[in-house]
Amino acid sequence: MLKAIYEETGSPLDVLKLVDTDIAELNAGDVRVDVLATPIHNADLLQMQGQYGISPQFPATPGSEGVGRIVEIGAGISHLEVGQTVLITGTSTWAKQIVAPAQNLIPMPEGVDADQISMLVVNPASALLMLNDYVDLQAGDWIIQNSSNSAVGSLVIQLAKLRGIKTVNIVRRAEVVGDLEALGADVVLVDGPELEKQVAAATNGEPIRLGLDSIGGASFAKLVSMLAPSAKMVVYSSMDGAPVSVPPMDMIFKGISFHGFWLAQWFKTATQEDMQKLFGELVGHVANGNIHMKIDSAFPLTQLEQAVARAMETGRNGKVILRPQS
Amino acid sequence: MLKAIYEETGSPLDVLKLVDTDIAELNAGDVRVDVLATPIHNADLLQMQGQYGISPQFPATPGSEGVGRIVEIGAGISHLEVGQTVLITGTSTWAKQIVAPAQNLIPMPEGVDADQISMLVVNPASALLMLNDYVDLQAGDWIIQNSSNSAVGSLVIQLAKLRGIKTVNIVRRAEVVGDLEALGADVVLVDGPELEKQVAAATNGEPIRLGLDSIGGASFAKLVSMLAPSAKMVVYSSMDGAPVSVPPMDMIFKGISFHGFWLAQWFKTATQEDMQKLFGELVGHVANGNIHMKIDSAFPLTQLEQAVARAMETGRNGKVILRPQS
Repeated sequence: MLKAIYEETGSPLDVLKLVDTDIAELNAGDVRVDVLATPIHNADLLQMQGQYGISPQFPATPGSEGVGRIVEIGAGISHLEVGQTVLITGTSTWAKQIVAPAQNLIPMPEGVDADQISMLVVNPASALLMLNDYVDLQAGDWIIQNSSNSAVGSLVIQLAKLRGIKTVNIVRRAEVVGDLEALGADVVLVDGPELEKQVAAATNGEPIRLGLDSIGGASFAKLVSMLAPSAKMVVYSSMDGAPVSVPPMDMIFKGISFHGFWLAQWFKTATQEDMQKLFGELVGHVANGNIHMKIDSAFPLTQLEQAVARAMETGRNGKVILRPQS
Repeated sequence: MLKAIYEETGSPLDVLKLVDTDIAELNAGDVRVDVLATPIHNADLLQMQGQYGISPQFPATPGSEGVGRIVEIGAGISHLEVGQTVLITGTSTWAKQIVAPAQNLIPMPEGVDADQISMLVVNPASALLMLNDYVDLQAGDWIIQNSSNSAVGSLVIQLAKLRGIKTVNIVRRAEVVGDLEALGADVVLVDGPELEKQVAAATNGEPIRLGLDSIGGASFAKLVSMLAPSAKMVVYSSMDGAPVSVPPMDMIFKGISFHGFWLAQWFKTATQEDMQKLFGELVGHVANGNIHMKIDSAFPLTQLEQAVARAMETGRNGKVILRPQS
């Protein structure tokens, strides 16, 4: 059974290898799943380099989500069936086949694009939870984000649009403005010295109730300065991990609060019902074409090295997907 | 009618003066109150210097709280009586007599120390709300604060003790350790290079669920580094207003969130019922001797200059009180 492993942290192209192992045993409560598609995320590459929240136990198999087909069901499981397509919410998905606890698998409707479903957990769930869990946003409310052309940023635009929430999207390159407007972005602005004025003009000075940051530094500070009283700032990633600078008067007198979002933390306390609700909503949006994630390229697992090399290139415009059954 | 006024911002001793005015008219919904006692807070002095959240309209009368006796009641008010002792939750209390909207006055039981009641709003309410409104603290839970010898800090110790919440109190001078232990502090430590280790030893490494900061800078950063996952950091003042530095990884992976507390903001949304509950609890604690605020000295309003000069001295150990009826 083919799978990717690494036995020490380091540069992904150095430490990653493909191994052919025996099929794992199936214990009670476990399910055997053929992996149909699984994406390569930056977080996967960072974790291999030892730069992410959780340290793996070695040997480790990368991968943080995927879609698969159930091929065998362990004792004690009645709600799943052989042949079902399932979302895999667990880890170690860069493999031809995995054995996972039943609670990590969420049945998906048939006939929905497998590549799209394979990316339903990390980015769409993050975008949806950040829109839902911090500020009680109403149609017509404004939010602001940086990294707006990232996978999460693009999903924030699409999911906000569905609820009538208006987005101010900060980008670094003018080339992407049209793409984001096509996704439904209300305002897209290239970061620069006039940004605050441009945002005030574009929003008519209306209050901006939520900020989403994945850059830090000066970009974080600009977002904070444009937030309305009692707004919330949510940080979900950091370009360099450097501390961000928070004016205490913005906390005290403007009542802005600062929060981190980490999807793994949400999973720690989410019930099976929470997960089915969240992913049920998201797969519906994929099936209806309400949200769409860009794909750069897809590789069979046997071309792991080429796939990872492509995922590490900067010019990409979308995710790299592994298709282990190809 | 004697009252303090200032007509421009500046050094309090330069801009502040006493004036004798006609008695104000009493409109429907208003109440005339003889001010018995009103404290001089740092925030009052900062506001005179133009360094506080709200800019006053000139001429302005300082003062942020006090205790008084009702002498006349305007039309349309049925829940107050002439002769009642009331807590004054409004502003402009440095006067012999004030006219205030009825909703700013909360009836107090007779026979409780007037100087203590005069300070019930700003510091005790802040301490109680910060303990109540951010983390659902249980008996045995740990919290940590700096400025522990300040008025708010001392009240946090006393109010936490009543609920069995354990406090780690950081101070800058060893002389105050005994005083804070006498108030009920569980752990008092002088800030220094070994602080983190000393805190871990004193708490047995148990999680610290709430941090209260009124200093900023390095002291804020140390508090943050000692907080447990999912803890909250509440900032209620700042030594110099300089931005504080927040590690994004502490937000994302530890789930620590950062909040400002401003009592004026609480009052904006508090109902009359919220206020009566809060101040009813606090006056009960004063009456029972559960909480006690230190008083440095008291002056008649006619000695305003001496009172303010004393309030600006650094060696004080308690508040300076004005007693306008003396």
